Amino acid sequence: MDKLNFREKLSTFTEHWKPKVIAEMNDYQFKLVKIRGDFVWHEHKDTDEAFIVIEGQMKIDFEDGSVELSEGEMFVVPKGVRHRPSSELESHVMLVEPRGVVNTGDSMSELTAPNDEWV
Amino acid sequence: MDKLNFREKLSTFTEHWKPKVIAEMNDYQFKLVKIRGDFVWHEHKDTDEAFIVIEGQMKIDFEDGSVELSEGEMFVVPKGVRHRPSSELESHVMLVEPRGVVNTGDSMSELTAPNDEWV
Repeated sequence: MDKLNFREKLSTFTEHWKPKVIAEMNDYQFKLVKIRGDFVWHEHKDTDEAFIVIEGQMKIDFEDGSVELSEGEMFVVPKGVRHRPSSELESHVMLVEPRGVVNTGDSMSELTAPNDEWV
Repeated sequence: MDKLNFREKLSTFTEHWKPKVIAEMNDYQFKLVKIRGDFVWHEHKDTDEAFIVIEGQMKIDFEDGSVELSEGEMFVVPKGVRHRPSSELESHVMLVEPRGVVNTGDSMSELTAPNDEWV
């Protein structure tokens, strides 16, 4: 039973928008992702999705507004709500969501990442 | 739809070992808790429990070992595993677990906290 160190886990990969699973809790997963630039507009029909900023900042656009998050801040996107994450500078984010969630939700594209990749 | 700032939420209470819910994701809750000293030995028979250190450090004792966590580190205690959280100095921790989990698990005591208190 080992503890998980975010900085150490983040040092093991460089790609953007490819979430890496670091832990499971029941049927939920904790994932770390490096982000930069704009992601695709998408939604997750069956689940909420939690974003926690570990380092840097991010913006999440919605059809009717947006929210800007910095280190030490989080936001839960409700299921079925169309959203587009983005970040001008490289930032590091933790996602918490059920096992099996695809990063691009209903919008398969070249940004769709393998969905159970661990570091 | 408001973002959640950990520091701001933590500034709203002072008690130790009384987790405060700050967000829900499906039927899971994110809770902040201030800790200091030893908690009670207990277990959660039906669920894993995630600990993420926001500020300071903590130790989790198990019957066969222990783990020490600092800021930026996390640990998932598997369901049914007896454990005792502790911290020499006041530290701030985020818990992630299903709605309805009682902080002292199977060990009701004076440390048992109201279980759906929001800040």
